[in-house]
Amino acid sequence: SEEFSFSDHSHRRFNPLTDSWVLCSPHRAKRPWLGQVEEASADQRPSYDPKCYLCPGNKRATGAQNEKYASTYVFPNDYAAVHAEQPDCDTAALAQVAGQNASSELFRVESTRGQCSVVCFSPRHDLTLPELTPSEISQVVRTWQAIYSDLSDDPAIGYVQLFENKGAMMGCSNPHPHGQVWALSEVPSEPALEIAALKKFHAKHAAKDPHACLLCSYVKAEETNAAAGESTNRVVLQNDSFMALVPFWAVWPFETMIVAKSHISNIKQLDDKQVTHLAEIMQGLTCRYDNLFQCSFPYSMGLHQSPTAAHPDADCCHLHLHFYPPLLRNSTVRKFLVGFEMMAEPQRDLTAEQAAARLRALSSIHYKCS
Amino acid sequence: SEEFSFSDHSHRRFNPLTDSWVLCSPHRAKRPWLGQVEEASADQRPSYDPKCYLCPGNKRATGAQNEKYASTYVFPNDYAAVHAEQPDCDTAALAQVAGQNASSELFRVESTRGQCSVVCFSPRHDLTLPELTPSEISQVVRTWQAIYSDLSDDPAIGYVQLFENKGAMMGCSNPHPHGQVWALSEVPSEPALEIAALKKFHAKHAAKDPHACLLCSYVKAEETNAAAGESTNRVVLQNDSFMALVPFWAVWPFETMIVAKSHISNIKQLDDKQVTHLAEIMQGLTCRYDNLFQCSFPYSMGLHQSPTAAHPDADCCHLHLHFYPPLLRNSTVRKFLVGFEMMAEPQRDLTAEQAAARLRALSSIHYKCS
Ligand SMILES: O=P(O)(O)O[C@H]1O[C@H](CO)[C@@H](O)[C@H](O)[C@H]1O
Ligand SMILES: O=P(O)(O)O[C@H]1O[C@H](CO)[C@@H](O)[C@H](O)[C@H]1O
Repeated sequence: SEEFSFSDHSHRRFNPLTDSWVLCSPHRAKRPWLGQVEEASADQRPSYDPKCYLCPGNKRATGAQNEKYASTYVFPNDYAAVHAEQPDCDTAALAQVAGQNASSELFRVESTRGQCSVVCFSPRHDLTLPELTPSEISQVVRTWQAIYSDLSDDPAIGYVQLFENKGAMMGCSNPHPHGQVWALSEVPSEPALEIAALKKFHAKHAAKDPHACLLCSYVKAEETNAAAGESTNRVVLQNDSFMALVPFWAVWPFETMIVAKSHISNIKQLDDKQVTHLAEIMQGLTCRYDNLFQCSFPYSMGLHQSPTAAHPDADCCHLHLHFYPPLLRNSTVRKFLVGFEMMAEPQRDLTAEQAAARLRALSSIHYKCS
Repeated sequence: SEEFSFSDHSHRRFNPLTDSWVLCSPHRAKRPWLGQVEEASADQRPSYDPKCYLCPGNKRATGAQNEKYASTYVFPNDYAAVHAEQPDCDTAALAQVAGQNASSELFRVESTRGQCSVVCFSPRHDLTLPELTPSEISQVVRTWQAIYSDLSDDPAIGYVQLFENKGAMMGCSNPHPHGQVWALSEVPSEPALEIAALKKFHAKHAAKDPHACLLCSYVKAEETNAAAGESTNRVVLQNDSFMALVPFWAVWPFETMIVAKSHISNIKQLDDKQVTHLAEIMQGLTCRYDNLFQCSFPYSMGLHQSPTAAHPDADCCHLHLHFYPPLLRNSTVRKFLVGFEMMAEPQRDLTAEQAAARLRALSSIHYKCS
């Protein structure tokens, strides 16, 4: 009788980090594409753009003026999603929108506070992360450390979300290399899900191993799998401190995760060597991304770590970065996570192993330089 | 001291259907938009396109030929994500990709089976749902009933997901009006989350009310809220059997839900009058959608109902349809759920009440006809 084959048969894989499933239909990659074709990004930009509100010395929409910065530059988001000060929302306030149902369990609201800032990665308007040198990226990591450090001591902040939207396809409204920080009073949904999973795993295994951690175990397992041969290898690249891999349960076609090899709780804990290693692996991974379809590869990237010092879950996380890139076939055809994915379950068209093999095979020298 | 205001202050709202939160930052709508601008859809199409693989009588990519159909038409998806027959995936098979870690809790896989089909809503290539008459849409609903009925009796099928991707922006590869059916052996993640929430609500309230249902209570609460005045009104339109509203916890800017007013478990249970009412409210809602920005309004739409007859949860759901439309400002500027939304928590830029008021104010006559 026929045997199950991962590259031919539909299956669901379980994501233990978020307690959810992904539907994998590897044969779907064969269907013809007649849908939307994206504009190829016009990849020619000046190193300084007088109209860019992120370039050094320029004016922003709100009138503030950027410093003439020479490496990284942080400023408050002029259109912050959350603010440091605002009133509470109690049942009386909730009546504005829920009337006499304000005390019902179906109408629950929390006032939320926080801070949003923008982090320019470089003064150069024409570069992106993979085109920066590892030592320039180290400076970005050190900037993140300083931001986390400051916010972590603020009792009003519960969680610091560092992220980057790269490319117009990912809602980025300015090609100048930059990321964002949204720091909130509460731990947001997605890290909260991960923290719950990490705590559950720890509780289950703590009797045997007081340091049990889901991501420590996962990194170790993927190290063995990679050594066992091509078909079980999901690692794209690694160094002494970090591993970049396509997670077994990846949703986006070329989704990856950079995971610390040792148990690091938050970005502040990285020592100098680890900062350099993180910068190197970020450079190596994003460079392979650009090389895959010979374009500036769009993605959303974000860093997950433990909540801030004041939070009861301050030490439960294991530092990792997620990269969610939308492209599927080439520089202009993306994967749409729409109907079935929104209503029912995320679905992917190639296996994690196929994606990892393709990324692993790429050069670590940027296509623009070779 | 200042009072909390829903249109000025950031807050999180709780979604009791999926046990999750959404961050609402109403003042963010004021920021300038310098990002991606979508192509306006070329809204001129012939009523028959000889190159369309969905038009009556035409050949499909795989060689099969469509019937010369005159109302709705169902055929098997030529690139189905799941198939009726395939081998199981046991630990031995899992070793292909997980090696000696195949028995670890971090590498969990299920073989999944099912059926995928395509449902053409009309033979007319140039029309979309809001341009069909309610009696033509009734025929679509009756087709859905027949599909659900057939599949519900198949012990290999656990859940039937009916959905539509409308518009290139939502990954639709053919503008001919059509939806899809993906029927799976397992209940997918999203309906599984809703079912868990509905069961939890029922268990909590069953002692007081043996028919307690989260969505029955929600519809009733929103009926009171709507009657109480404009600021608590999230209803867009309603008839005797259904209510179309912007849910209190909506994520997408103009997200809506059509909910049955009485406790209906699955689409098969609709009687003739209810079929007509569902068709009428679908027509009225999608017509307002088109009128909002005077364009063919893109969205993903899907129907949530109870699992199939054989499933232990066969009767626990309450029929409703979700509409997730991406547009935010006009026909070419969409909302991106990217960095923060993917890594941390969905975020919206206007309140559910503001969205509902705008949709409610629109004409029920399609802009192309007026
Ligand atoms: O099946 P279609 O219309 O070719 O494809 C579309 O809908 C599917 C189901 O939501 C998605 O998986 C695809 O990414 C999307 O392009
Ligand atoms: O803050 P920006 O870059 O203007 O906006 C972008 O990122 C935000 C955070 O992920 C999203 O909410 C916006 O939809 C997106 O366009």
